[in-house]
Amino acid sequence: MKVVTMGELMLRLEPHGHLRFAQTDSFGVSYGGGEANVAVSLANFGAQATLVTKLPKHEIGQAAVNSLRRFGVDTSFIVRGGERVGIYFLEKGASQRPGKVIYDRAGSSFALAGHAEFDWDKIFEGADWFHFTGITPSLGGNAALTTLNALKAAKAFGIPVSCDLNYRSKLWSRESAREVMSGLMKYVQVCITNELDASRIFGIEPDKGGATAGKLNKAGYESVAKQLMEQFCFQKVAITLRGSVTHSDNLWAGMLYSGVKPHFSKEYAIRLVERVGGGDAFSAGLIYALLSKYDDHEAIEFATAASCLKHSVEGCYNMVTAEEVKELANNG
Amino acid sequence: MKVVTMGELMLRLEPHGHLRFAQTDSFGVSYGGGEANVAVSLANFGAQATLVTKLPKHEIGQAAVNSLRRFGVDTSFIVRGGERVGIYFLEKGASQRPGKVIYDRAGSSFALAGHAEFDWDKIFEGADWFHFTGITPSLGGNAALTTLNALKAAKAFGIPVSCDLNYRSKLWSRESAREVMSGLMKYVQVCITNELDASRIFGIEPDKGGATAGKLNKAGYESVAKQLMEQFCFQKVAITLRGSVTHSDNLWAGMLYSGVKPHFSKEYAIRLVERVGGGDAFSAGLIYALLSKYDDHEAIEFATAASCLKHSVEGCYNMVTAEEVKELANNG
Amino acid sequence: MKVVTMGELMLRLEPHGHLRFAQTDSFGVSYGGGEANVAVSLANFGAQATLVTKLPKHEIGQAAVNSLRRFGVDTSFIVRGGERVGIYFLEKGASQRPGKVIYDRAGSSFALAGHAEFDWDKIFEGADWFHFTGITPSLGGNAALTTLNALKAAKAFGIPVSCDLNYRSKLWSRESAREVMSGLMKYVQVCITNELDASRIFGIEPDKGGATAGKLNKAGYESVAKQLMEQFCFQKVAITLRGSVTHSDNLWAGMLYSGVKPHFSKEYAIRLVERVGGGDAFSAGLIYALLSKYDDHEAIEFATAASCLKHSVEGCYNMVTAEEVKELANNG
Amino acid sequence: MKVVTMGELMLRLEPHGHLRFAQTDSFGVSYGGGEANVAVSLANFGAQATLVTKLPKHEIGQAAVNSLRRFGVDTSFIVRGGERVGIYFLEKGASQRPGKVIYDRAGSSFALAGHAEFDWDKIFEGADWFHFTGITPSLGGNAALTTLNALKAAKAFGIPVSCDLNYRSKLWSRESAREVMSGLMKYVQVCITNELDASRIFGIEPDKGGATAGKLNKAGYESVAKQLMEQFCFQKVAITLRGSVTHSDNLWAGMLYSGVKPHFSKEYAIRLVERVGGGDAFSAGLIYALLSKYDDHEAIEFATAASCLKHSVEGCYNMVTAEEVKELANNG
Amino acid sequence: MKVVTMGELMLRLEPHGHLRFAQTDSFGVSYGGGEANVAVSLANFGAQATLVTKLPKHEIGQAAVNSLRRFGVDTSFIVRGGERVGIYFLEKGASQRPGKVIYDRAGSSFALAGHAEFDWDKIFEGADWFHFTGITPSLGGNAALTTLNALKAAKAFGIPVSCDLNYRSKLWSRESAREVMSGLMKYVQVCITNELDASRIFGIEPDKGGATAGKLNKAGYESVAKQLMEQFCFQKVAITLRGSVTHSDNLWAGMLYSGVKPHFSKEYAIRLVERVGGGDAFSAGLIYALLSKYDDHEAIEFATAASCLKHSVEGCYNMVTAEEVKELANNG
Amino acid sequence: MKVVTMGELMLRLEPHGHLRFAQTDSFGVSYGGGEANVAVSLANFGAQATLVTKLPKHEIGQAAVNSLRRFGVDTSFIVRGGERVGIYFLEKGASQRPGKVIYDRAGSSFALAGHAEFDWDKIFEGADWFHFTGITPSLGGNAALTTLNALKAAKAFGIPVSCDLNYRSKLWSRESAREVMSGLMKYVQVCITNELDASRIFGIEPDKGGATAGKLNKAGYESVAKQLMEQFCFQKVAITLRGSVTHSDNLWAGMLYSGVKPHFSKEYAIRLVERVGGGDAFSAGLIYALLSKYDDHEAIEFATAASCLKHSVEGCYNMVTAEEVKELANNG
Repeated sequence: MKVVTMGELMLRLEPHGHLRFAQTDSFGVSYGGGEANVAVSLANFGAQATLVTKLPKHEIGQAAVNSLRRFGVDTSFIVRGGERVGIYFLEKGASQRPGKVIYDRAGSSFALAGHAEFDWDKIFEGADWFHFTGITPSLGGNAALTTLNALKAAKAFGIPVSCDLNYRSKLWSRESAREVMSGLMKYVQVCITNELDASRIFGIEPDKGGATAGKLNKAGYESVAKQLMEQFCFQKVAITLRGSVTHSDNLWAGMLYSGVKPHFSKEYAIRLVERVGGGDAFSAGLIYALLSKYDDHEAIEFATAASCLKHSVEGCYNMVTAEEVKELANNG
Repeated sequence: MKVVTMGELMLRLEPHGHLRFAQTDSFGVSYGGGEANVAVSLANFGAQATLVTKLPKHEIGQAAVNSLRRFGVDTSFIVRGGERVGIYFLEKGASQRPGKVIYDRAGSSFALAGHAEFDWDKIFEGADWFHFTGITPSLGGNAALTTLNALKAAKAFGIPVSCDLNYRSKLWSRESAREVMSGLMKYVQVCITNELDASRIFGIEPDKGGATAGKLNKAGYESVAKQLMEQFCFQKVAITLRGSVTHSDNLWAGMLYSGVKPHFSKEYAIRLVERVGGGDAFSAGLIYALLSKYDDHEAIEFATAASCLKHSVEGCYNMVTAEEVKELANNG
Repeated sequence: MKVVTMGELMLRLEPHGHLRFAQTDSFGVSYGGGEANVAVSLANFGAQATLVTKLPKHEIGQAAVNSLRRFGVDTSFIVRGGERVGIYFLEKGASQRPGKVIYDRAGSSFALAGHAEFDWDKIFEGADWFHFTGITPSLGGNAALTTLNALKAAKAFGIPVSCDLNYRSKLWSRESAREVMSGLMKYVQVCITNELDASRIFGIEPDKGGATAGKLNKAGYESVAKQLMEQFCFQKVAITLRGSVTHSDNLWAGMLYSGVKPHFSKEYAIRLVERVGGGDAFSAGLIYALLSKYDDHEAIEFATAASCLKHSVEGCYNMVTAEEVKELANNG
Repeated sequence: MKVVTMGELMLRLEPHGHLRFAQTDSFGVSYGGGEANVAVSLANFGAQATLVTKLPKHEIGQAAVNSLRRFGVDTSFIVRGGERVGIYFLEKGASQRPGKVIYDRAGSSFALAGHAEFDWDKIFEGADWFHFTGITPSLGGNAALTTLNALKAAKAFGIPVSCDLNYRSKLWSRESAREVMSGLMKYVQVCITNELDASRIFGIEPDKGGATAGKLNKAGYESVAKQLMEQFCFQKVAITLRGSVTHSDNLWAGMLYSGVKPHFSKEYAIRLVERVGGGDAFSAGLIYALLSKYDDHEAIEFATAASCLKHSVEGCYNMVTAEEVKELANNG
Repeated sequence: MKVVTMGELMLRLEPHGHLRFAQTDSFGVSYGGGEANVAVSLANFGAQATLVTKLPKHEIGQAAVNSLRRFGVDTSFIVRGGERVGIYFLEKGASQRPGKVIYDRAGSSFALAGHAEFDWDKIFEGADWFHFTGITPSLGGNAALTTLNALKAAKAFGIPVSCDLNYRSKLWSRESAREVMSGLMKYVQVCITNELDASRIFGIEPDKGGATAGKLNKAGYESVAKQLMEQFCFQKVAITLRGSVTHSDNLWAGMLYSGVKPHFSKEYAIRLVERVGGGDAFSAGLIYALLSKYDDHEAIEFATAASCLKHSVEGCYNMVTAEEVKELANNG
Repeated sequence: MKVVTMGELMLRLEPHGHLRFAQTDSFGVSYGGGEANVAVSLANFGAQATLVTKLPKHEIGQAAVNSLRRFGVDTSFIVRGGERVGIYFLEKGASQRPGKVIYDRAGSSFALAGHAEFDWDKIFEGADWFHFTGITPSLGGNAALTTLNALKAAKAFGIPVSCDLNYRSKLWSRESAREVMSGLMKYVQVCITNELDASRIFGIEPDKGGATAGKLNKAGYESVAKQLMEQFCFQKVAITLRGSVTHSDNLWAGMLYSGVKPHFSKEYAIRLVERVGGGDAFSAGLIYALLSKYDDHEAIEFATAASCLKHSVEGCYNMVTAEEVKELANNG
């Protein structure tokens, strides 16, 4: 099982524990990014995972590369050059206080990389899957073009493609997102999203209800999935369902829809260690399950259990094995 | 908006995480004290805040001063001299294990400061508010006299005064507290307290009910507020309402009473990061709201949301902005 | 009150906070082991407590000894020699992710100690109680023989004996456990266990029901206690009752049965700081209570409150005083 | 004594101890920059010090402001806005391994600030001195123009100006440096440099000899100072003299020349705690000494002792008092 | 070998690494005091060591007791009560920057303890040696009287007594020191001091020379020892010889004089890890050597090697074994 | 350039800073071993490096694997299985206090691995060099046989072999070492050692002189190299030359001899950050230089500079690039 992902790998800086930015004199240092998180998660499951990105030659760039190698991700297609590693500062929320992210990622090596720097013919050799998120095309014209190239190559290779819509309002407007993403969706077979992003990017609204504190709005999810599938001819739509009780406690579940009836996973009441990367862990779980030929019911249970466990793990990467996921999915 | 507060600033020493005193080989170092906490909280809201106190000239005294300057509190009226910074050791509670405080504050520079060391004519120049707590007069005759002087000066300047009753049984007896505090109340327009302190200092009991685990006794609060107002002619009485589910979880709300009908805030279920300073954050929020001409309903929501957020912040100081408070008060 | 315990003292290595083994570059260092935990717990209550074990002469062995001395445990009967301190690696669980233990204890000084290295005539001089757990005989033939010798000596001295069954599947099979433990039970007056271990070692099953998530199965406990008492002529059987809501939250209670009717303690909803050592804290509480001549009701409340508090304390040792336990048992 | 400085304030990120970038999972967080370091140093001596710069409104920007306020620097003229705080990554050297700096400062709020954002008429009100370094004009056209404006305003106010040449090859070429700096020098009365920068920027070479390992080249310094003075009509030229024995040990001295004969300070053999900020501490010491009307001999001893002490202090800021400096200068 | 010591045990708080007080947000926590350091050092050599002191009943007092128990010191004669543990803040020096100590020890339990609280008849049972330092009588009238009582009891028991003069100018004047100490010296057989303290307390000056940077003044030591011996009839006088190259490097040696000719130890060039406790390690080494019947040459080599090693150990206590000391003394 | 190494990879546990084992409550966690260190060092130079070893399947084993992957070492030939990762505890020395190592490595997966578990035909495919150390055959019969197999295979493949003699008295006797190692030497072309090990294993003594404190005995090294070459027909003998001034300062140099005249490197005075791994860094440097076709003079300068830099780096692995080494070798 060989999965290729492409996206930015950022330096993540965060105060320890519950300290706020203005209190800390130390940052925890790690590395992450939507697609990198998926790659590490898959590597931890035992899959071959490749991240395609660009990073500077200097030591911080090297440390970012090392963070992937450490967990067995193939980094041989990472282009080295450019000026800087994108940064994001992360402050953990608690109770009624929301978490906070400050991006300092403009001008990163990957965002400025030219589309011709990536040789998809080599990259996709032997690959079984390609995954990307809506963050990559949002990084600017270069990245959007690179994404398109990758998708065309994947199509040429006959490699299935999944996309986590992942709308980031700090990176582009809804209008831009809709325009660019709409052009990319025809290359996508498996669409992963949450209710909110489907609305923010494509204006797709659930038929009834909405997320209310402490409850998951299962009712509206099927309708969102159906609309997405009709509009873009996806084979599958997977939706993550988060209910925030507080910033320390969440409800979490998933839904997978292949056109007939939606499969809902078990619902988990989560005491949060960390919220970041939960969606990426879900994507990785889903890809792993689909490549393992799980049926839709098994697949959504696996993907949701994987992302549930991620909420108990520090850092961007989901440090759990496939066995640990199965144990929770089956008995948890 | 310029607010003056006066009180002791202590060195706070605490084991990291959930370690007990007998296990630790490292203490987190911070500084705090009821009035200082109010001052920093107000500075973080954007107000001008002044702390009046006395601290030694040595480096630990300087570090205490710096802890205020860092957050923009005016420290130009801090008298420098004396022998020691008062200390308190703090051990965080968890689940069924209560937190623990050991005071080592006798003989501090501020407790021994002479009342003539503070020049209230200069201090109150341009001030809009004066705040103190019941801790200050409890530190001994000098501090009580200094408090009285400050109150008389505030009256002469026509500056409104708030007092957080804040009874500390380790510092004085109920009898002493009642005697001294009764003499100071006539200078106070806004009284801030909780049900327990009103009883312990002034013997004021609610008409019915009492705090029971996991429930806030809203019923009795109005009667306490009325009695306080009748006895001391306050313009407003604000009461904080804490319900302790465990030492990791609390319920929290506030009430503001101006003589007509009590305004209760929303009630928050809090997962505790830290309990210390919750009351001070409430006082700061209330002062900010009143000086911002909020109506009583808005004021109690703001004050309670501010103190709710404080429970998610490490250290004595409430590291939140007015915007963050408003967001919680309005939508949370 | 002088209590003797015997067992292995291990080096415990654990990632800080919620980090997983594969993420950490630092281990917290502490020392512990079932019987050592009981000894420290008793010393913290003010009892005289002795741990009998064997540890290498080198510095890691010395640090293990020091960890006991620090809290006042008598270490004068610890034999020094052999090659290594047993090690266990501990990873804390959270939410849906279970904790993890990796043992690296084979070949430890204690496991390989000859039974003749311990002079029970001296050790038991003046002793009021002897406590051991099922872990010790599971360490191999030497340790099992040493246990038997100790029990015979205790009998000769007329010292009451308690045993925490404590089955560890990684150390021996159910068959071996049943065979060896059955031979030791006739020396035991107070049997401490949980429902699961009684079943796994002796095949004793409750009459009805079973533990279900979030609920304590009180119903079946009495029947387990009765069967144990009938089979082995214990004077008392104490059972701990854990209900795991998640790996961050547990329900916790205890039962004590002396042949007439079971005494159930209050039931505690615990927010976990640490789960390890909860059973040992229970044993220590029970021994302390029985030696203090508490009645069964008081004893089970004390033992359960002690172990409840342990769940809020980091490390293997229960760092609480008898006063703190009583306060929770009486009012908590 | 009121001193104004202007320059970029950066976020400094560094592995703890002697770890290299690729080994660390934590960065120490502090803030610094040539001119900010001078400001804090002066504030620690008791002077009034103002830093003029621009920082984003977000929390990292605020933390940078706080780092100055904490030590009493006036931050009221810091413009708030723009996108990012410049960053530099610092790895400490040791023995034969040199330290390492990675800049990630392009696009910072200050570098992009418009020259009209700073109101020099207000800033210079009551000021006694203006200090800048060659780093500021190297940040780009905006910053160079802002520098020129500041210098013209200083001249109009009759405020003496000092400049630390501080050539950074990563920020501009020697040609650009010479062109721009030459235009600014006529506004400068006190020039601070080391032998190397005078050569790199202005092509000024000492008459004889050169720095050799473990020895200070006193011989050539006077000739460099004379040439600088002749070329730019400075009133004083101060030169710092570093001899690197290893990256753990340095020799350090200073020279001050006012046109007649050079005054050399004592020479210090320094065991390095940190090398960064040594030159800034020298500048601050010199400004303090000159504004205190020390004679040249006293001034160079004070400035050199101040910077010597900085080498024993962690972080960018020189955390020493004027008394500590005098004690070393007089007796050390 | 059973040695009794008496003195204050303090809480020691220190920034980590080379941070200054005003920079740190964490203090390392340890416990120490001249006589306690001697006791732990002796316990680490394998001797029985008892510390007599008084400490509060609260947890900080308990942690202080535990710090001794951990290393095997007998704490059974520590009186529990009073209000506070004395504190000292310690900032480590480096290179040209001296270390710094801030005392906050007034009003400690021990300083205020009544002389009748200590039962010397029990304490001295079986003791072979009594050691105290000049710090104890400097703590006030109570402590001085307690010291005198102890000395009289030691005389009655026929126990040899050593005293480390240890003058602390922050605790008493030279005049008080001379008056009080003179009265105690007749009970002392072994006097331990450095050149400076002999002068400051008793006005005894060396015949020639003085300490100069980087050189030990061996010449004057013999004359100081002779004068001390003549004045007070000591049996032995031991002098420690420190030459400070910088605050990172020291020269260190010792001299022992029994009336005939002085024995000088080897001279060590020390790279400092920590300077505190070097003298106490010397005292402990000397006591151990004398009780082990070493001759004067062996004794001074052992004592000096012990204290040399202490300079490489963090904290107040000398964490080295007698074997490690012998290895250095013999071969180092 | 593809280099294969084989040996044990251990878990390394060490107190932080200068703490002794008995003081610490935290261990730094890293992984290392003679051959692994060589592999990482080579990978950091840009070479392809493979470590052959065996590690358990559990998480600690995985973390060991990850420590190699992180730096780009090929881990695909690591056999997974067995019970435990060997451990060594490391305490850093300072000044006169020597460092300390406690091994707890008996029974490790690699030591017990059967020789048939390694498939040398696959491992050596495309390899340019094989390196091992004397530690591996010392681990027992299995490991010695595995070594022999590897050497025979290397010979069959025509791959040059280097061996670092590396005698460890805690692992085997001199007699065993001589017997086993003598049988292996015929497969070795490049012998790496220090004077001491040549003597301890093969009884080879230098003609004259010996290492004295603070001086390198260059005189005797040539004679040792000659004798080794005569006895075992090596093509090259490289000797590292350490002079220990204190445990904080060392002299360091290297010699390379190919039969004609010895080439001595520059001599470095090193301020130690860490001493462990210095020899392995030398081996790696030498292998890199020889495979890069450096002449003997260049090779010994490169190897010595590489190991010199290692002394400034924390941990077992030499975290330096080939460029950094060259810069020191050429200019340092």
